[in-house]
Amino acid sequence: MITITTIKEMQAFVLEKKEQQVSVGFVPTMGYLHEGHRSLMKKARQENDLLVLSIFVNPLQFGPNEDLESYPRDFDRDAEIAKAEGVDVIFFPSAEEMYGRYSSVQVNVKERTDVLCGKSRPGHFDGVATVLTKLFNIVLPNRAYFGLKDAQQVAVVHGLVSDFHFPIEIVPVETVREEDGLAKSSRNVYLSDKERKEAPILYKSLLMAKEKVQSGLTDEIKIISEMKEMIEGRSSGKVDYIEIYSYPELKKVEPLEGKIIIALAVKFNKARLIDNIIFSVNE
Amino acid sequence: MITITTIKEMQAFVLEKKEQQVSVGFVPTMGYLHEGHRSLMKKARQENDLLVLSIFVNPLQFGPNEDLESYPRDFDRDAEIAKAEGVDVIFFPSAEEMYGRYSSVQVNVKERTDVLCGKSRPGHFDGVATVLTKLFNIVLPNRAYFGLKDAQQVAVVHGLVSDFHFPIEIVPVETVREEDGLAKSSRNVYLSDKERKEAPILYKSLLMAKEKVQSGLTDEIKIISEMKEMIEGRSSGKVDYIEIYSYPELKKVEPLEGKIIIALAVKFNKARLIDNIIFSVNE
Repeated sequence: MITITTIKEMQAFVLEKKEQQVSVGFVPTMGYLHEGHRSLMKKARQENDLLVLSIFVNPLQFGPNEDLESYPRDFDRDAEIAKAEGVDVIFFPSAEEMYGRYSSVQVNVKERTDVLCGKSRPGHFDGVATVLTKLFNIVLPNRAYFGLKDAQQVAVVHGLVSDFHFPIEIVPVETVREEDGLAKSSRNVYLSDKERKEAPILYKSLLMAKEKVQSGLTDEIKIISEMKEMIEGRSSGKVDYIEIYSYPELKKVEPLEGKIIIALAVKFNKARLIDNIIFSVNE
Repeated sequence: MITITTIKEMQAFVLEKKEQQVSVGFVPTMGYLHEGHRSLMKKARQENDLLVLSIFVNPLQFGPNEDLESYPRDFDRDAEIAKAEGVDVIFFPSAEEMYGRYSSVQVNVKERTDVLCGKSRPGHFDGVATVLTKLFNIVLPNRAYFGLKDAQQVAVVHGLVSDFHFPIEIVPVETVREEDGLAKSSRNVYLSDKERKEAPILYKSLLMAKEKVQSGLTDEIKIISEMKEMIEGRSSGKVDYIEIYSYPELKKVEPLEGKIIIALAVKFNKARLIDNIIFSVNE
């Protein structure tokens, strides 16, 4: 495994590999790797000749009041995990390297952003789409891997790749869960023992909603209120939002049909957890 | 020579060629090809194995009061010229094909746009940068060719390619001129005989300014007023603007140093002509 820190070297390395018909899998991350990242790396490792992992805490996707400075970083630990998962190249550029002295262009995401978590993070997805446009052109992958835990990000990336026609296959990877169904997250450690025992209700409520929709219930308001009742009745969590949209367009669907996402955010004492389920109605 | 109208076919065609280490030259145009385009095709033909010309009148770069509908189109004539210049593939998509039912992302150009002709065309370069991002990903060229007649466009493209790290070499091509120095333009036909005889004064004023700068005059205001006097004294044209900037950054330089552009637009009775000169001070 090698680490590359400059754009020029990374691009040259990949261009040379691609001349030899090597397929490139890419897992873009902000580092501090966890089990979700591992599942992306495992899948990418199986499907490609060369596996590139990027570690870059992207300033452009942090809001002025967000935790850019305190975002956790631990390159040595990340490198160990990457090596264990069979990564060939870690691309690890500085912010200076990625954004230079100034920049004249930026990607503006006009759709799929003013819902779910995006509502409270204006400009966040512009930052995500801009850095991915750069990374895609630097790493030139055949496939790029994204976790469905952040389904809105996957939706935005689908839009980016499809609108800009990047010759890249986006591979969405299922959320990794604990045995009791709780979506794995670095934030789960902030749950109290009691909260931890309650938290699987989030996924249970999503499964319940899916079952109701599949068995013919298409009244969005009723589904959402039943979910809210279930979560707040059986845990100390407070629902931040429960929303239902078409996927990946993230538009209102009335009545519910086609491929949809049901997504939620729930606040516990010290942790705000998110989860979602994506499925096709009537299939 | 073949014509391809779908994104999918164009991208697949080029990807297959690139597997055989074929170098791809790309000349993006809005059609109605003239001698300027010919010079781009000639240069691209010399430097690449495969030559792709795109013809696409891009709605996104026209303002609401601009001439999208009446923009001249003549595919058969264009195809003849392309064939004569050795083009291998014409990429000729519809607006529907390029922009689909909706789009969720767009490139926003934040610099180099509020000067020269861009001042009066808000959003124009966002449209240019967006369509080029799409075309670059569809045609996947090694080199793309742009005429320096529209030096601001070349500057924006340099910014786009450098900020987004497209693995593409941008090749700026010198403005093609008549024997008397007048920059070739499809708009020259709108000049009266008298105006046509006067029009070479535009380029003469640029050469005069360059000589003054090279011989030590760095007072921008003085240079501009001398040029204006020369043009308006020796022709019936009215100066729309004469501006001097660093190139390709298009920032004010005081005093004049480094690589600069002197650019002008002059209004005649039925034609508005533009021209420019780019050179390095003290080299």
